Amino acid sequence: MSNEPQQETHEVLQSLIWENDALSLLDQRLLPEETVYLRLTTPQDVWEAIRELKVRGAPAIGIAAAYGVVLGVRGLSGSAADWAAEVSRHAEHLATSRPTAVNLFWALDRMKARAQELASLGIAPAEAIEALLDEAKRIQAEDEETNRLIGEHALTLFKDGMGVLTHCNAGGLATAKYGTALAPFYLALEQGIKLKVFADETRPVLQGARLTAFELQRAGVDVTLICDNMAGHVMSKGWIQAVIVGTDRVAANGDVANKIGTYGVAVLARAHGIPFYVASPLSTIDLSTPTGAGIPIEERHPDEVTAGFGKRTAPQGVAVYNPAFDVTPGELVTAIITEKGIVTAPYEENLRKLFE
Amino acid sequence: MSNEPQQETHEVLQSLIWENDALSLLDQRLLPEETVYLRLTTPQDVWEAIRELKVRGAPAIGIAAAYGVVLGVRGLSGSAADWAAEVSRHAEHLATSRPTAVNLFWALDRMKARAQELASLGIAPAEAIEALLDEAKRIQAEDEETNRLIGEHALTLFKDGMGVLTHCNAGGLATAKYGTALAPFYLALEQGIKLKVFADETRPVLQGARLTAFELQRAGVDVTLICDNMAGHVMSKGWIQAVIVGTDRVAANGDVANKIGTYGVAVLARAHGIPFYVASPLSTIDLSTPTGAGIPIEERHPDEVTAGFGKRTAPQGVAVYNPAFDVTPGELVTAIITEKGIVTAPYEENLRKLFE
Repeated sequence: MSNEPQQETHEVLQSLIWENDALSLLDQRLLPEETVYLRLTTPQDVWEAIRELKVRGAPAIGIAAAYGVVLGVRGLSGSAADWAAEVSRHAEHLATSRPTAVNLFWALDRMKARAQELASLGIAPAEAIEALLDEAKRIQAEDEETNRLIGEHALTLFKDGMGVLTHCNAGGLATAKYGTALAPFYLALEQGIKLKVFADETRPVLQGARLTAFELQRAGVDVTLICDNMAGHVMSKGWIQAVIVGTDRVAANGDVANKIGTYGVAVLARAHGIPFYVASPLSTIDLSTPTGAGIPIEERHPDEVTAGFGKRTAPQGVAVYNPAFDVTPGELVTAIITEKGIVTAPYEENLRKLFE
Repeated sequence: MSNEPQQETHEVLQSLIWENDALSLLDQRLLPEETVYLRLTTPQDVWEAIRELKVRGAPAIGIAAAYGVVLGVRGLSGSAADWAAEVSRHAEHLATSRPTAVNLFWALDRMKARAQELASLGIAPAEAIEALLDEAKRIQAEDEETNRLIGEHALTLFKDGMGVLTHCNAGGLATAKYGTALAPFYLALEQGIKLKVFADETRPVLQGARLTAFELQRAGVDVTLICDNMAGHVMSKGWIQAVIVGTDRVAANGDVANKIGTYGVAVLARAHGIPFYVASPLSTIDLSTPTGAGIPIEERHPDEVTAGFGKRTAPQGVAVYNPAFDVTPGELVTAIITEKGIVTAPYEENLRKLFE
């Protein structure tokens, strides 16, 4: 294993910070080369940041949008009803920034509902704005709390000295803090438990190299970057005792949609007798989708594969298949780790119990 | 699947062509963006081309070196013995161009032996040069014939309409023509047998994207490029009926060293009930290495992973593990395809028989 000259600043990066009446947002497009916080002061600033992927990760997008609503109604006077209508107007605009992120709509609905509630109580705008900001902060705090709980449950599965492999980025950058799959690594660091993390680079967009390796290294977690195709080799060397990944959607039967390549890692883990864990908040478990077969797989532009980093690395005109996600069958999933605890098979039955 | 605008020139690229008293060599470093043939006229030209990886692939390097010797003794007069000594001098210099390629030493030894033979027969330099050139052409022709035979044997395993996945580049660019693992695809094309090839891009150096996709597309083979981490997903979709790869060394027990990621593909193939084939000339089977455990795994520079595309895609200072090869245990290998036929388990016994 080779180390390049090591930097020694250890800090947990936060993607979203409310400070000085504005939203400080880490521009994720520039990572890992530059760490730049943008100061967003209007709903339109937030709309553009979401649209242009300066912020990514469903929970992080929802939190950003909630603060965006607050930015839109600062300094307003007039009636409580007018103020609540203005909240709705900004929320509806912010909802158009990205079409598919469920947390975005959920967070904006929550902000609108809170504004209606405040208006119906006849609370004046000057006072209501503080309550609305508190709601946005609560959304962020709850996300952090959810992730911390996932991390605590996950950490019970890991022991000092273990090697743990992860794929893509389900980290603090995608959420309020800690992330989902990466949460146990941050908690282990806080508690002095030594884990050796291997991060798949995650082609084609390299979220593992650009984001996971970056945020874990910054925090002082022992992380080693590998190419996706090295996962089997490091498992065969006995370096990996567990795999943990995030997820974009869990079906009712425990099938897990996640970044392309997750399925291959799950098959390799099974072949080596290594447990395969999925970190998932309850909000990502979709009981209305019976199996993974019902989860649509987004196919993306060939350029991501053929010319992903400013240089063309494949012939012009070549056929490319570029699915963004794959589905790992529930039978390859050792456990799903939620904020309410660790769920094992039979998933059909045990996932349903989480919501009872 | 997406196709970029398709070019329609179909030709099989050759990496090495002797023409007009010089060696025309395809500069592989510029592929796939530029197809440039270099005209090499001196042994030093060839030495530099090998050293600087303008030519790669063990058989191609051996062939280039053989022609390099010929380039060194053109136009010489004097005694037959002096001429043979000059052949040896050039061969010894060319052998320093790369330290590990076995075919390089083998080809140069053969050229030296041929020169000694010609000298001992008292054949004058002017006449002997033609015989020496014939020897170099024979090395090239024999490699082509070996590959054609491997291709013919391999093709008996494939049927019209099959999807076949390959990893890295064991193609015509690495050999005189056809390649080893890619040979059946060229023969299928000649015979009108339709195969659908999937090429892993093969991080970190992307030989699959830069070379395999390139040479197959040029030849008119139906090839689709995927990222390495998509192999499991395309197998799960039922698109792959066989895997075929090349090899850098086969141990006596059938363990196979090949480009990093090959082992993961073999595990995935086994999990999906897909046969996993290895194309190997006899010269690559090393009975003196009992098992794969005896094959050293070269570890390469972290830059290949962290800044491989001319742009930095991972944080400064991050730890990287970058093995160039892995070992696939013989028990995952369905068959090894040689110029002398198809070998199956028990490999210990059946590989030995090839050399009896």
